[in-house]
Amino acid sequence: MLIALAQMNPILGGFAHNRKKIISNIEEARAQGAAIVLFPELALCGYAPEDLLLLPEFIAQMEEELMTVVRASSEIIVIVGLARRHPYGGEKGLLNSACIIENGKILGFQDKILLPDYDVFSERRYFDPGQTVSIWTLKGKEVAILICEDIWQHGGLLEYVSYERDPVEMLVGKKVDLLLNLSASPFFIGHEGARQGVCGKVARTLGCPVALVNQVGGNDSLIFDGKSLLMRKDGQVVKRAKGFEEELLLCDIESEQRVEYRDDPMQNLFDALVMGTRDYFRKVGYHSAIFGLSGGIDSALVAAILVHALGRENVHALFMPSRYTSKESAEDAKKQAELLGITCEELSIEGPFKSYLELLQPTMEVCGVTEENLQARVRGMLLMAYSNQLGHMVIGTGNKSELAMGYSTLYGDMCGGLEIIGDVTKGWVVALCKWLNREKEMIVKRVIEKEPSAELRENQKDSDTLPPYDIVDRVLEGYVHEHLSPKQIAENEGIELSLVKELVRKIHCNEYKRQQSPPSLRVTKRSFSEGRRFPIAQHWNVTHVS
Amino acid sequence: MLIALAQMNPILGGFAHNRKKIISNIEEARAQGAAIVLFPELALCGYAPEDLLLLPEFIAQMEEELMTVVRASSEIIVIVGLARRHPYGGEKGLLNSACIIENGKILGFQDKILLPDYDVFSERRYFDPGQTVSIWTLKGKEVAILICEDIWQHGGLLEYVSYERDPVEMLVGKKVDLLLNLSASPFFIGHEGARQGVCGKVARTLGCPVALVNQVGGNDSLIFDGKSLLMRKDGQVVKRAKGFEEELLLCDIESEQRVEYRDDPMQNLFDALVMGTRDYFRKVGYHSAIFGLSGGIDSALVAAILVHALGRENVHALFMPSRYTSKESAEDAKKQAELLGITCEELSIEGPFKSYLELLQPTMEVCGVTEENLQARVRGMLLMAYSNQLGHMVIGTGNKSELAMGYSTLYGDMCGGLEIIGDVTKGWVVALCKWLNREKEMIVKRVIEKEPSAELRENQKDSDTLPPYDIVDRVLEGYVHEHLSPKQIAENEGIELSLVKELVRKIHCNEYKRQQSPPSLRVTKRSFSEGRRFPIAQHWNVTHVS
Repeated sequence: MLIALAQMNPILGGFAHNRKKIISNIEEARAQGAAIVLFPELALCGYAPEDLLLLPEFIAQMEEELMTVVRASSEIIVIVGLARRHPYGGEKGLLNSACIIENGKILGFQDKILLPDYDVFSERRYFDPGQTVSIWTLKGKEVAILICEDIWQHGGLLEYVSYERDPVEMLVGKKVDLLLNLSASPFFIGHEGARQGVCGKVARTLGCPVALVNQVGGNDSLIFDGKSLLMRKDGQVVKRAKGFEEELLLCDIESEQRVEYRDDPMQNLFDALVMGTRDYFRKVGYHSAIFGLSGGIDSALVAAILVHALGRENVHALFMPSRYTSKESAEDAKKQAELLGITCEELSIEGPFKSYLELLQPTMEVCGVTEENLQARVRGMLLMAYSNQLGHMVIGTGNKSELAMGYSTLYGDMCGGLEIIGDVTKGWVVALCKWLNREKEMIVKRVIEKEPSAELRENQKDSDTLPPYDIVDRVLEGYVHEHLSPKQIAENEGIELSLVKELVRKIHCNEYKRQQSPPSLRVTKRSFSEGRRFPIAQHWNVTHVS
Repeated sequence: MLIALAQMNPILGGFAHNRKKIISNIEEARAQGAAIVLFPELALCGYAPEDLLLLPEFIAQMEEELMTVVRASSEIIVIVGLARRHPYGGEKGLLNSACIIENGKILGFQDKILLPDYDVFSERRYFDPGQTVSIWTLKGKEVAILICEDIWQHGGLLEYVSYERDPVEMLVGKKVDLLLNLSASPFFIGHEGARQGVCGKVARTLGCPVALVNQVGGNDSLIFDGKSLLMRKDGQVVKRAKGFEEELLLCDIESEQRVEYRDDPMQNLFDALVMGTRDYFRKVGYHSAIFGLSGGIDSALVAAILVHALGRENVHALFMPSRYTSKESAEDAKKQAELLGITCEELSIEGPFKSYLELLQPTMEVCGVTEENLQARVRGMLLMAYSNQLGHMVIGTGNKSELAMGYSTLYGDMCGGLEIIGDVTKGWVVALCKWLNREKEMIVKRVIEKEPSAELRENQKDSDTLPPYDIVDRVLEGYVHEHLSPKQIAENEGIELSLVKELVRKIHCNEYKRQQSPPSLRVTKRSFSEGRRFPIAQHWNVTHVS
């Protein structure tokens, strides 16, 4: 039996757009001879719609859309994810369901049983859990259908939670010929093998093939990588869809084929950032970007990502030197723009900077952070003026290590519609740049090698106020990603406890900045942008981390 | 029997601070002869600690703090709220509990059964629900103890949710002499009578007195109003604590006393904003504020709130005229500062504004929104320079109607550590100003009466681009607060459907601005700052609201 996995890139609430995609996938699957076509979790509205789910009109519209899909399902079985009203009320009144449709008739619904409410997920805010797993006889096969998280308890890889129920266990001892899973499972570094591992375990437990279809595309911070797959009953992959692209994957569930897919973590990360950027622009209706090209490594990487995401003709760099900008930075910025084939205008910030100093000096002695921030903010204002006048989106160039330390200026270099590398630590920034240079020079070599500097005062180096980024990153990963205590981090990493505590305190103290930053594309286990919620006014950091 | 309701203002994660408060309240209650002293929900760590709850070290510290409270409980019964590890694992591994302590011994725990996960609440992210309600024999009385939400299902006033269980119903038919409730129940306009209504219904159902202790104080966006109370078994209030202040309320549960409390909505709103402001400053360690005083109504109201919250010596106004500032605005700003007794410096933005124009004009024709935003951003930068150099916190002056419409400049007038009136609609701004003037002129009268203008171009009026604020507010309240459809709003309010849709579209399109705004003090049912989560990139507004 042939089944089709419709790995699609929906737009949140873009019902017309999503319906068109669903229907053309149904038609294509039918033409290819598929018996079943499977769509991702919440495919009708896209994942995650957040509080759109609380608008009764939104749910009513989704129910209408479902009927359109039903009408388009002649001579094929369609399984599509949607939110639907709970038939008996329930606590929240909504269910996260798969609708099983055969030849113009709704056979029924399978409701999601395990509702993730941790990290970037808030499904208990909207949905009631389903209670049972049904087995559906489809074209003579006994088919079980589970939604995303439903197979993860069995996978044994959950970190934040341990559910009381395991929907896969609920199927043990029953005749199941095929398990289907509708997913919207986001990408992050280090998670590559997890989904495959979970499907493998489920296939071996039930002794049947498992097919998983995953959403693809970027929605605000979240990046869905696709890579839908069919697995044999022994847990070997038969076929896998592309990463970071739409695809209708046709697969024969009886196939004995076995394919090894090797994931290159660097390629994955780069593809994720490119797709996340491209989709954000497309989905908010922007076409071109402008950003500050400083001659440093972060803006160089951002430039490379933008060029891949938008095409070089849509990428505009602004080099904005000050009295503190080095000759090398000017050379490197220019060379970087040339390497990528993008335009780079130069605009000195000295005029506005001086006019602020003249205005303020009679009242106060402008020095230190004030003077530094003024420069960063003049740059932010110039970028925003370009955005306002020419319609480019301003793109931030801050990385995660800087955001963690507050080594960035609110309303200055933190301006923009999107922080492309706001969830990429300095270590990964460097690694990505070296990887981009693996064949030819994409990132100016000297930029990768030189010592990081914000160039906001004479001969400034990041290391004047911060320890080496290697240490910052290890503390950040331990505290933010793993929730380890400063003591554990100090022991694991061999870093002085007092230094770990100082960095952890900095992480907490800069919460107010991050809460005003643009969304960052989420590529780690725990980004500042989504999936991490800390209060600004709190004394945990003062009394216990010091 | 005397019981003491310890209406306290905790600091999130400020264990040393909270412990000191708890112990001094225990001592005072004991000295006053109370048999029981009752603390709010999560009193040990404060509500809402958010992801601090995910740090194992944070929970371990809380357990240590509990032991300190246990040791301080000689000759009195102490009931205190805390988060504790689930004894049998559970899905999340944490319970939101009340610990019942008598004379140095833990009698046991009552776990919260109904976990709110809607609006500003995310308790399913952290906690597992409790399963049963125990009855405790305390000083010869049969006492039931419930935590906050546990009594609200019975109250019948929940809007977002309908729980399957009702912990109050679970007590029906049992002997209950007293019901105690530990709350952290936030304030919002129009919610004043609700808590009292719920307690009244519970008292009448169980036929026993009900005592509720509520947290007081501001934590980031959230404002807790206190007003802890004792109610007779017939639902009449015996005694109520003050609003927006700490208090140890001693009450005799046998009292036949009956008191009527009248809440003045204006006074409540003003007190909420003052306390929310004061607490945010105090809890993040700031003492003084700076803000742009424009001669308009919003900054005038902000000035009055700041003076009440911080004392006039800590409030610094900056009047920043441009070529478009009217003579009236200059007069009104000066007079407003005089009325409130605060200093007001004047700093023309012409210098920096011109230097931007000179720098940019060769490249582009600076006009329209670009020119307007430049002015607002020069002001933001000047305020931030004052903040950086002199240590004042910048306070935003935008109101909710402006935030809804995007009638505000990102990195300009949206700069700051806190938006004090970011959840106050224009209609309430005007009403509050009139109310402040009820005895003497606090807000310059002409400021209240004149037509709103941003003065970013010649003779600009808000009404050039927006319909009257009365209409904006009615659409905002219908769509944002009540989740009504444009059609329902048009019908209910008698506003043209096309206009309603245009405004709703504006609300969605400006999501990106609001996600970068400072926290706003939450004073309505649904603020933009907390409790409302919408994606930026979505097409619901494009395809369905247009």
